[in-house]
Amino acid sequence: MKFVIPLLGRTREAYLDAGVRDYAGRLGRFAQVELPVLKERHSRKEPDEVVKANDAALLLEQTAAASLVVALDPAGRTPDSEELASLLTGWEDRGAHTVCFLIGGHLGLHRSVLARADLVLSLSRLTFTHELTRLVLLEQLYRACTIRAGHRYHK
Amino acid sequence: MKFVIPLLGRTREAYLDAGVRDYAGRLGRFAQVELPVLKERHSRKEPDEVVKANDAALLLEQTAAASLVVALDPAGRTPDSEELASLLTGWEDRGAHTVCFLIGGHLGLHRSVLARADLVLSLSRLTFTHELTRLVLLEQLYRACTIRAGHRYHK
Repeated sequence: MKFVIPLLGRTREAYLDAGVRDYAGRLGRFAQVELPVLKERHSRKEPDEVVKANDAALLLEQTAAASLVVALDPAGRTPDSEELASLLTGWEDRGAHTVCFLIGGHLGLHRSVLARADLVLSLSRLTFTHELTRLVLLEQLYRACTIRAGHRYHK
Repeated sequence: MKFVIPLLGRTREAYLDAGVRDYAGRLGRFAQVELPVLKERHSRKEPDEVVKANDAALLLEQTAAASLVVALDPAGRTPDSEELASLLTGWEDRGAHTVCFLIGGHLGLHRSVLARADLVLSLSRLTFTHELTRLVLLEQLYRACTIRAGHRYHK
Protein backbone atom coordinates (compact mmCIF):
# COMPACT_ATOMS: atom_id res chain seq x y z
CA MET A 1 0.00 0.00 0.00
CA LYS A 2 1.16 3.54 -0.68
CA PHE A 3 0.38 6.53 1.54
CA VAL A 4 0.48 9.97 -0.06
CA ILE A 5 0.29 12.96 2.28
CA PRO A 6 0.55 16.22 0.32
CA LEU A 7 1.97 19.01 2.48
CA LEU A 8 0.72 22.58 2.04
CA GLY A 9 4.18 24.09 2.40
CA ARG A 10 7.16 22.50 4.10
CA THR A 11 7.08 21.86 7.84
CA ARG A 12 8.50 25.11 9.20
CA GLU A 13 8.84 24.12 12.86
CA ALA A 14 12.18 22.29 12.89
CA TYR A 15 11.29 19.83 15.65
CA LEU A 16 8.03 18.84 13.94
CA ASP A 17 9.89 18.45 10.67
CA ALA A 18 12.32 16.11 12.44
CA GLY A 19 9.39 14.13 13.85
CA VAL A 20 7.68 13.90 10.47
CA ARG A 21 10.90 12.58 8.91
CA ASP A 22 11.40 10.11 11.75
CA TYR A 23 7.94 8.56 11.43
CA ALA A 24 7.93 8.70 7.62
CA GLY A 25 11.13 6.64 7.79
CA ARG A 26 9.69 4.15 10.27
CA LEU A 27 6.45 3.85 8.28
CA GLY A 28 8.57 3.18 5.19
CA ARG A 29 9.23 -0.32 6.51
CA PHE A 30 5.53 -1.15 6.05
CA ALA A 31 4.39 0.97 3.11
CA GLN A 32 5.54 3.41 0.47
CA VAL A 33 5.28 6.94 1.83
CA GLU A 34 5.22 10.10 -0.26
CA LEU A 35 5.09 13.60 1.24
CA PRO A 36 4.97 15.95 -1.76
CA VAL A 37 5.42 19.57 -0.73
CA LEU A 38 2.93 21.84 -2.51
CA LYS A 39 3.75 25.45 -3.22
CA GLU A 40 0.93 27.60 -1.90
CA ARG A 41 -0.23 30.16 -4.50
CA HIS A 42 -1.98 32.67 -2.28
CA SER A 43 -0.77 35.50 -0.16
CA ARG A 44 -1.87 35.57 3.47
CA LYS A 45 -3.64 38.87 2.80
CA GLU A 46 -6.40 37.22 0.80
CA PRO A 47 -9.75 36.44 2.46
CA ASP A 48 -9.78 33.15 4.39
CA GLU A 49 -12.29 31.59 2.00
CA VAL A 50 -10.07 32.33 -1.02
CA VAL A 51 -7.02 30.86 0.74
CA LYS A 52 -8.95 27.71 1.61
CA ALA A 53 -10.31 27.34 -1.95
CA ASN A 54 -6.82 27.79 -3.45
CA ASP A 55 -5.37 25.25 -1.03
CA ALA A 56 -8.22 22.88 -1.89
CA ALA A 57 -7.44 23.09 -5.60
CA LEU A 58 -3.79 22.25 -4.91
CA LEU A 59 -4.72 19.31 -2.68
CA LEU A 60 -7.32 17.89 -5.06
CA GLU A 61 -4.77 17.87 -7.92
CA GLN A 62 -2.84 15.36 -5.83
CA THR A 63 -5.72 12.89 -5.65
CA ALA A 64 -5.78 11.99 -9.36
CA ALA A 65 -3.98 8.68 -8.86
CA ALA A 66 -5.48 7.85 -5.45
CA SER A 67 -7.65 4.79 -4.90
CA LEU A 68 -8.95 6.35 -1.71
CA VAL A 69 -9.07 9.93 -0.44
CA VAL A 70 -9.11 10.53 3.33
CA ALA A 71 -9.65 14.08 4.60
CA LEU A 72 -8.47 15.01 8.10
CA ASP A 73 -10.95 17.10 10.06
CA PRO A 74 -11.71 17.35 13.79
CA ALA A 75 -15.40 16.72 13.05
CA GLY A 76 -14.74 13.43 11.21
CA ARG A 77 -14.88 9.82 12.30
CA THR A 78 -12.80 9.21 15.46
CA PRO A 79 -11.46 5.64 15.50
CA ASP A 80 -9.21 4.34 18.24
CA SER A 81 -5.82 2.96 17.19
CA GLU A 82 -7.09 -0.62 16.76
CA GLU A 83 -10.01 0.61 14.64
CA LEU A 84 -7.59 2.60 12.48
CA ALA A 85 -5.54 -0.56 11.96
CA SER A 86 -8.74 -2.37 10.91
CA LEU A 87 -9.61 0.46 8.52
CA LEU A 88 -6.21 0.02 6.82
CA THR A 89 -6.80 -3.71 6.50
CA GLY A 90 -10.24 -3.06 5.02
CA TRP A 91 -8.79 -0.64 2.45
CA GLU A 92 -6.12 -3.14 1.50
CA ASP A 93 -8.71 -5.93 1.19
CA ARG A 94 -10.72 -3.75 -1.18
CA GLY A 95 -7.61 -3.22 -3.34
CA ALA A 96 -6.84 0.38 -2.40
CA HIS A 97 -3.20 0.61 -3.50
CA THR A 98 -2.80 4.37 -3.00
CA VAL A 99 -4.39 6.20 -0.08
CA CYS A 100 -4.15 9.98 -0.13
CA PHE A 101 -4.53 11.85 3.18
CA LEU A 102 -5.49 15.53 2.91
CA ILE A 103 -4.57 17.93 5.71
CA GLY A 104 -5.76 21.54 5.49
CA GLY A 105 -3.65 24.62 6.03
CA HIS A 106 -3.92 26.79 9.15
CA LEU A 107 -7.57 27.53 8.27
CA GLY A 108 -8.59 23.88 7.91
CA LEU A 109 -10.01 22.18 4.82
CA HIS A 110 -12.35 23.77 2.28
CA ARG A 111 -15.77 22.10 1.98
CA SER A 112 -14.88 20.95 -1.56
CA VAL A 113 -12.19 18.68 -0.09
CA LEU A 114 -14.55 17.28 2.53
CA ALA A 115 -17.10 16.65 -0.25
CA ARG A 116 -14.54 14.81 -2.41
CA ALA A 117 -13.19 12.61 0.39
CA ASP A 118 -14.18 8.95 0.63
CA LEU A 119 -13.71 9.22 4.39
CA VAL A 120 -13.38 12.15 6.79
CA LEU A 121 -11.09 11.08 9.61
CA SER A 122 -10.55 12.87 12.91
CA LEU A 123 -7.36 12.33 14.90
CA SER A 124 -8.96 14.16 17.80
CA ARG A 125 -11.94 16.36 18.57
CA LEU A 126 -9.27 18.86 19.62
CA THR A 127 -7.87 21.12 16.90
CA PHE A 128 -4.15 20.64 16.24
CA THR A 129 -1.93 22.93 14.19
CA HIS A 130 -1.66 21.55 10.66
CA GLU A 131 2.05 20.84 11.24
CA LEU A 132 1.35 18.87 14.43
CA THR A 133 -1.38 17.00 12.52
CA ARG A 134 1.29 15.76 10.10
CA LEU A 135 3.31 14.23 12.93
CA VAL A 136 0.28 12.72 14.69
CA LEU A 137 -1.06 11.22 11.45
CA LEU A 138 2.29 9.60 10.60
CA GLU A 139 2.67 8.30 14.15
CA GLN A 140 -0.81 6.77 13.98
CA LEU A 141 -0.28 5.20 10.56
CA TYR A 142 2.97 3.71 11.90
CA ARG A 143 1.17 2.52 15.05
CA ALA A 144 -1.60 0.98 12.92
CA CYS A 145 0.99 -0.88 10.84
CA THR A 146 2.72 -2.22 13.97
CA ILE A 147 -0.65 -3.35 15.35
CA ARG A 148 -1.35 -5.22 12.10
CA ALA A 149 2.13 -6.75 12.18
CA GLY A 150 1.91 -7.70 15.87
CA HIS A 151 4.95 -5.60 16.84
CA ARG A 152 5.54 -4.34 20.35
CA TYR A 153 5.70 -0.57 19.57
CA HIS A 154 2.00 0.05 20.13
CA LYS A 155 1.92 -1.44 23.66
CA MET B 1 -3.16 29.23 37.60
CA LYS B 2 -0.31 26.73 37.80
CA PHE B 3 -0.03 23.62 35.63
CA VAL B 4 2.09 20.76 36.97
CA ILE B 5 2.85 17.92 34.55
CA PRO B 6 5.09 15.32 36.21
CA LEU B 7 7.17 13.45 33.63
CA LEU B 8 7.94 9.75 34.14
CA GLY B 9 11.51 10.09 32.91
CA ARG B 10 12.90 12.84 30.71
CA THR B 11 11.66 13.15 27.11
CA ARG B 12 14.15 10.92 25.27
CA GLU B 13 13.14 11.74 21.69
CA ALA B 14 15.08 14.95 21.04
CA TYR B 15 12.50 16.51 18.69
CA LEU B 16 9.67 15.88 21.14
CA ASP B 17 11.78 17.32 23.95
CA ALA B 18 12.31 20.44 21.80
CA GLY B 19 8.55 20.66 21.20
CA VAL B 20 7.74 20.22 24.89
CA ARG B 21 10.18 23.02 25.77
CA ASP B 22 8.77 25.26 23.04
CA TYR B 23 5.17 24.95 24.21
CA ALA B 24 6.07 25.04 27.91
CA GLY B 25 7.75 28.39 27.16
CA ARG B 26 4.77 29.72 25.22
CA LEU B 27 2.33 28.52 27.89
CA GLY B 28 4.49 30.30 30.47
CA ARG B 29 3.05 33.61 29.26
CA PHE B 30 -0.38 32.57 30.56
CA ALA B 31 0.33 30.33 33.54
CA GLN B 32 3.06 28.90 35.71
CA VAL B 33 4.27 25.62 34.23
CA GLU B 34 6.20 22.96 36.09
CA LEU B 35 7.45 19.75 34.47
CA PRO B 36 9.17 17.82 37.28
CA VAL B 37 11.07 14.81 35.95
CA LEU B 38 10.46 11.73 38.11
CA LYS B 39 13.06 9.03 38.43
CA GLU B 40 11.41 5.71 37.65
CA ARG B 41 12.24 3.08 40.27
CA HIS B 42 11.48 -0.10 38.36
CA SER B 43 13.41 -2.13 35.86
CA ARG B 44 11.71 -2.93 32.57
CA LYS B 45 11.94 -6.62 33.42
CA GLU B 46 9.26 -6.39 36.09
CA PRO B 47 5.69 -7.43 35.25
CA ASP B 48 3.65 -4.69 33.57
CA GLU B 49 1.29 -4.42 36.53
CA VAL B 50 4.20 -3.80 38.93
CA VAL B 51 5.69 -1.16 36.63
CA LYS B 52 2.32 0.62 36.39
CA ALA B 53 1.79 0.48 40.18
CA ASN B 54 5.29 1.87 40.85
CA ASP B 55 4.76 4.66 38.31
CA ALA B 56 1.38 5.38 39.91
CA ALA B 57 2.96 5.79 43.34
CA LEU B 58 5.50 8.26 41.91
CA LEU B 59 2.79 10.24 40.12
CA LEU B 60 0.43 10.35 43.09
CA GLU B 61 3.21 11.76 45.31
CA GLN B 62 3.16 14.79 43.00
CA THR B 63 -0.50 15.53 43.62
CA ALA B 64 -0.16 16.49 47.29
CA ALA B 65 -0.36 20.24 46.60
CA ALA B 66 -2.79 20.03 43.66
CA SER B 67 -6.23 21.63 43.77
CA LEU B 68 -7.28 19.45 40.87
CA VAL B 69 -5.92 16.20 39.45
CA VAL B 70 -6.50 15.44 35.76
CA ALA B 71 -5.52 12.01 34.43
CA LEU B 72 -4.86 11.58 30.71
CA ASP B 73 -6.37 8.43 29.23
CA PRO B 74 -7.73 7.63 25.74
CA ALA B 75 -10.99 6.44 27.32
CA GLY B 76 -11.61 9.73 29.16
CA ARG B 77 -13.71 12.76 28.34
CA THR B 78 -12.96 14.13 24.84
CA PRO B 79 -13.56 17.87 24.71
CA ASP B 80 -12.91 19.95 21.62
CA SER B 81 -10.48 22.84 21.98
CA GLU B 82 -13.17 25.38 22.90
CA GLU B 83 -14.59 23.04 25.54
CA LEU B 84 -11.09 22.57 26.98
CA ALA B 85 -10.77 26.36 27.22
CA SER B 86 -14.12 26.44 29.06
CA LEU B 87 -12.95 23.69 31.41
CA LEU B 88 -9.92 25.83 32.33
CA THR B 89 -12.15 28.82 32.99
CA GLY B 90 -14.40 26.67 35.16
CA TRP B 91 -11.45 25.41 37.20
CA GLU B 92 -10.18 28.94 37.71
CA ASP B 93 -13.64 30.13 38.74
CA ARG B 94 -13.76 27.38 41.36
CA GLY B 95 -10.41 28.55 42.74
CA ALA B 96 -8.22 25.72 41.43
CA HIS B 97 -4.79 27.34 41.70
CA THR B 98 -2.73 24.23 40.90
CA VAL B 99 -3.85 21.70 38.29
CA CYS B 100 -1.81 18.51 38.07
CA PHE B 101 -1.95 16.50 34.80
CA LEU B 102 -0.93 12.86 35.06
CA ILE B 103 0.39 11.03 32.00
CA GLY B 104 1.15 7.33 32.26
CA GLY B 105 4.34 5.64 31.09
CA HIS B 106 4.48 3.43 28.00
CA LEU B 107 1.94 1.06 29.62
CA GLY B 108 -0.61 3.76 30.40
CA LEU B 109 -1.95 4.75 33.82
CA HIS B 110 -2.59 2.38 36.71
CA ARG B 111 -6.22 2.20 37.86
CA SER B 112 -5.25 3.83 41.19
CA VAL B 113 -4.41 7.03 39.29
CA LEU B 114 -7.67 6.97 37.36
CA ALA B 115 -9.50 6.43 40.66
CA ARG B 116 -7.74 9.41 42.30
CA ALA B 117 -8.30 11.82 39.39
CA ASP B 118 -10.95 14.53 39.60
CA LEU B 119 -11.26 14.29 35.81
CA VAL B 120 -10.10 11.76 33.23
CA LEU B 121 -9.31 13.64 30.05
CA SER B 122 -8.73 12.15 26.61
CA LEU B 123 -6.72 14.06 24.01
CA SER B 124 -7.82 11.51 21.44
CA ARG B 125 -9.45 8.10 21.20
CA LEU B 126 -6.21 7.16 19.46
CA THR B 127 -3.34 6.01 21.66
CA PHE B 128 -0.27 8.26 21.49
CA THR B 129 3.18 7.47 22.86
CA HIS B 130 3.51 9.01 26.32
CA GLU B 131 6.17 11.39 24.97
CA LEU B 132 3.92 12.60 22.14
CA THR B 133 1.12 13.01 24.71
CA ARG B 134 3.33 15.53 26.55
CA LEU B 135 3.66 17.68 23.43
CA VAL B 136 -0.02 17.43 22.49
CA LEU B 137 -1.16 18.27 26.04
CA LEU B 138 1.07 21.36 26.21
CA GLU B 139 -0.02 22.48 22.74
CA GLN B 140 -3.66 22.13 23.77
CA LEU B 141 -3.22 23.96 27.07
CA TYR B 142 -1.49 26.76 25.14
CA ARG B 143 -4.29 26.74 22.55
CA ALA B 144 -6.91 26.86 25.31
CA CYS B 145 -5.17 29.85 26.89
CA THR B 146 -5.05 31.70 23.54
CA ILE B 147 -8.75 30.97 23.02
CA ARG B 148 -9.51 32.43 26.45
CA ALA B 149 -7.33 35.47 25.70
CA GLY B 150 -8.80 35.98 22.21
CA HIS B 151 -5.43 35.58 20.47
CA ARG B 152 -5.09 34.55 16.84
CA TYR B 153 -2.96 31.39 17.34
CA HIS B 154 -5.91 29.01 17.59
CA LYS B 155 -7.50 30.09 14.27
